Amino acid sequence: MSPSSRPVIIVHGGAGDLGPDDPASSGGPDAPRLAGVRRAAEAGFRVLFAGGGALDAVEAAVRELEDDPTFNAGTGACLTAAGDVELDASIMDGATLRCGAVAVVKDVRNPVTLARRVMDGSSQVLLAGPGASAFAREVGLPTCRNSELVTPAQLERWRRLREKAAAPSGKGTVGAVARDGRGHLAAATSTGGMSLKRPGRVGDTPIIGCGTYADDSLAAVSCTGHGERIIQLTLARHAADLVGRGMATMAAAREAVRELEARVGGHGGLILVGPSGEAAFAHNTPVMTRAWSTPDGRVLAEM
Amino acid sequence: MSPSSRPVIIVHGGAGDLGPDDPASSGGPDAPRLAGVRRAAEAGFRVLFAGGGALDAVEAAVRELEDDPTFNAGTGACLTAAGDVELDASIMDGATLRCGAVAVVKDVRNPVTLARRVMDGSSQVLLAGPGASAFAREVGLPTCRNSELVTPAQLERWRRLREKAAAPSGKGTVGAVARDGRGHLAAATSTGGMSLKRPGRVGDTPIIGCGTYADDSLAAVSCTGHGERIIQLTLARHAADLVGRGMATMAAAREAVRELEARVGGHGGLILVGPSGEAAFAHNTPVMTRAWSTPDGRVLAEM
Repeated sequence: MSPSSRPVIIVHGGAGDLGPDDPASSGGPDAPRLAGVRRAAEAGFRVLFAGGGALDAVEAAVRELEDDPTFNAGTGACLTAAGDVELDASIMDGATLRCGAVAVVKDVRNPVTLARRVMDGSSQVLLAGPGASAFAREVGLPTCRNSELVTPAQLERWRRLREKAAAPSGKGTVGAVARDGRGHLAAATSTGGMSLKRPGRVGDTPIIGCGTYADDSLAAVSCTGHGERIIQLTLARHAADLVGRGMATMAAAREAVRELEARVGGHGGLILVGPSGEAAFAHNTPVMTRAWSTPDGRVLAEM
Repeated sequence: MSPSSRPVIIVHGGAGDLGPDDPASSGGPDAPRLAGVRRAAEAGFRVLFAGGGALDAVEAAVRELEDDPTFNAGTGACLTAAGDVELDASIMDGATLRCGAVAVVKDVRNPVTLARRVMDGSSQVLLAGPGASAFAREVGLPTCRNSELVTPAQLERWRRLREKAAAPSGKGTVGAVARDGRGHLAAATSTGGMSLKRPGRVGDTPIIGCGTYADDSLAAVSCTGHGERIIQLTLARHAADLVGRGMATMAAAREAVRELEARVGGHGGLILVGPSGEAAFAHNTPVMTRAWSTPDGRVLAEM
């Protein structure tokens, strides 16, 4: 397989203070967070290795993370100030610039797949709230009760944070970017947003250009971190543009995160893959869990 | 007043097929559309001329257009497939990159002011649906019944389009960009979206980087047109970046609209003001109503 046709995927399980003190981060290489991103990258890589497209690969990887209660997306998402789960997700195809996104969704297990359906099966790009759920039912995507998305760990965390009157905070947004064997790029991101967030609050995740962007001629990017700050810089599109202007992917990832901190005081991170398959990441938080495929077909994970 | 401290504002009343066949476009210089954008530019320019900031000027201009039933924003917005009004708006401060936005709002007359309150008075950037309305009530912004936003003309249009089973279409989004006497830039955009749109559909207007962007070091931009196509290119941020890379403002506006058509088949337009106050616009639709202030303090309107 020539380097130019080599498929690659990189996934993240969120940036934040998710180091050894976090129960899901302890246990060495078997820590739930590391095991989770590894499984997700493997799921995406299997799609690519079988000749599948980048779009299918990032959707498969993000579904895996949405279904894993360790991460703040799908099942196990953090709870709003009202004690509900409100989910956001987006997906974008670098070959065609087609994209789909959903925001403030309360009754769908895999918002990334709902975003994909918006992209493939509607003339819209972004559906928010009950309109997104109505679309899910129209296209036959299973819906669920909000309580089915709430894990005991998140409920316990919500009670603890609410007692302390803690400020809203988020960690554990998930995302994936990939390049397939035909050289096409794709990106997807999914989140429950911030704990104790105001109902109706939408962060960067479902905003094309902010949480997610993909353009075969630039790069594919998925962001995580303080969404309001990421939106101010349209961080995903900005990082992709830096690659388009000739910057190496690792330098572009680092420069985008540097600007996030320098210009708007933001904390977070991103993963990125360029047109030739050069994967990269950067974060200014203590930790960003991630996993990626190597040229010889292995998957490595790190935090 | 030196050119570098000269305030300038440019507003648009939407791109589309709003030529002489549209009743609000006939009547020469007194046509309701031309008179409306002129009044809005004058309202914004009064703020600037009195020494006010660009942010206050664009909010004042967009409020004027939201209150004018001629335009598809605030009162007089077009109706969804369900026969409701659902409003989107955003605003951004180029000096600080602070921004605010609201989506799918049903009970607020001036969504641009609600977006401003989100920016100034919350830790969020984007609130959608009932959460945005709840925030309006919390901060004491007057709410209204949805029916108060519905004009007889839009109701009649909705009935006609529904009978024809017409595809969703939008015209008449409004926006403003300005540079104040201190050299700061701001942008704001407001819309009712597309007629017969699916409830919950969000277009480019409340998406920072897509419908609206402002950065003192780049440009301030407000877009109008087919929102889904504008989102795919993050058009406002892209046009601002072209200015940042040294392109003249008129060339940047035209290049952004050229790419909108060439890359994703999109139709629409944008207004733009650069760091030295060079206003510009471009559109690939038959018409884009607009008004702007001249160096000698007059306001001109054109479609």
